[in-house]
Amino acid sequence: MIYIVGIGPGDREYLTLKAIKIVENADLVVGSKRALELFNIDEDKKITLTKNLIGELKELIKNENIKNKKIAILSTGDPCFSGLLKTLLKIGAKKEDIEAISGISSIQIAAAKLKISWEDYYIITLHGKEENRKKLLNLIKNHEKVIFLPNNLKEDAKFLINNGINPDTKIWVLENLTYENEKISLKSLKEIANGDFSYLTVCVYEGDEEI
Amino acid sequence: MIYIVGIGPGDREYLTLKAIKIVENADLVVGSKRALELFNIDEDKKITLTKNLIGELKELIKNENIKNKKIAILSTGDPCFSGLLKTLLKIGAKKEDIEAISGISSIQIAAAKLKISWEDYYIITLHGKEENRKKLLNLIKNHEKVIFLPNNLKEDAKFLINNGINPDTKIWVLENLTYENEKISLKSLKEIANGDFSYLTVCVYEGDEEI
Ligand SMILES: C[S@@+](CC[C@H](N)C(=O)[O-])C[C@H]1O[C@@H](n2cnc3c(N)ncnc32)[C@H](O)[C@@H]1O
Ligand SMILES: C[S@@+](CC[C@H](N)C(=O)[O-])C[C@H]1O[C@@H](n2cnc3c(N)ncnc32)[C@H](O)[C@@H]1O
Repeated sequence: MIYIVGIGPGDREYLTLKAIKIVENADLVVGSKRALELFNIDEDKKITLTKNLIGELKELIKNENIKNKKIAILSTGDPCFSGLLKTLLKIGAKKEDIEAISGISSIQIAAAKLKISWEDYYIITLHGKEENRKKLLNLIKNHEKVIFLPNNLKEDAKFLINNGINPDTKIWVLENLTYENEKISLKSLKEIANGDFSYLTVCVYEGDEEI
Repeated sequence: MIYIVGIGPGDREYLTLKAIKIVENADLVVGSKRALELFNIDEDKKITLTKNLIGELKELIKNENIKNKKIAILSTGDPCFSGLLKTLLKIGAKKEDIEAISGISSIQIAAAKLKISWEDYYIITLHGKEENRKKLLNLIKNHEKVIFLPNNLKEDAKFLINNGINPDTKIWVLENLTYENEKISLKSLKEIANGDFSYLTVCVYEGDEEI
């Protein structure tokens, strides 16, 4: 069985008891170096994923022993939000060989930090979803509330401005949530288009009129 | 400080380390009987909420001592999804007196059980949001993928059928997630309109054509 285990936004405190239990009882634990460090795992049970993530996961699911072994794959945030669940299914893992263990998503931490309720927001990821940029554009045009994961935030902001959104429109930029270098700021699109941001960023548009 | 602490879908295993830490270090812990039972709390620190939830929370936030005490309020799922955060702000709690601690939402567990990715779905709650029934109707009419929290599932299904949705349309009904009596079934709207369901239910429409 493959357990895709959500490890939350980064800070160990957001691990669930279930994630810890499954990982510590697994025969094999696969994850990034940073993810593996959150748990107590015997050295000989760890597999550190490198840049060739897809290739390594493909090897793993081809393994004959999958049915008899407990393999835990660590996934940031919630594996069911723009996460490793989709990746695994795409490369051919069978649903019946997988169990997904929910984790706290970066979307949720963003909502908690701003004290907003995410049922009032559209939620969109621009990660590898080119068509969602247009969706985002239309939502902001209509002053709809949106939480989004940017693809390349600077470029995304330029795209919005070039397509008619007021450059003074304010967006919350939430970087490195739950890490020591966490940074939360309210910025105009104009500022964002000229700024530099962490890869780990969630954005929130509260639907206000410009300024 | 008021900590609104997400306790997840019900099973203790979905608590985060952070939720446990905050609750066990609080001066006062407020919650339903079932929620309080998930933690080790001294008897004299517990306040069990009754049916007069709103009245009791109002008393609590009027308390002069709020700034100097650590008060934990337990909220099912994620407090920032159709949860107690909104309730508290509505009755006048100040944002600066509140810290929200994310928990695993029932929406996430539903996605994990069906092994779907929730960034591909619209997410809607019909709880106290009459206007969202129409939104749901339009989404299903357009075969859009939706995860929704029903208000009264039987009545919601009748509403959909009466407004032109094919009664054979299939919906996943996920009841009592993570509890011992958890039940997951794929049902037609017709069957749902004639059935009886738990108050704790999440529904998923996968956007398929009817049948
Ligand atoms: C491939 S997605 C995975 C999302 C993840 N499954 C989740 O539920 O948060 C990676 C993106 O998630 C967001 N993200 C993840 N962790 C974050 C954090 N600690 N702070 C801010 N954004 C984060 C960033 O937008 C990042 O580029
Ligand atoms: C007021 S809302 C609170 C939602 C909660 N904040 C969350 O994130 O799951 C209550 C609704 O959540 C859903 N719910 C909560 N726990 C559930 C569970 N264990 N199984 C199924 N549905 C659940 C049901 O639709 C229930 O009527």
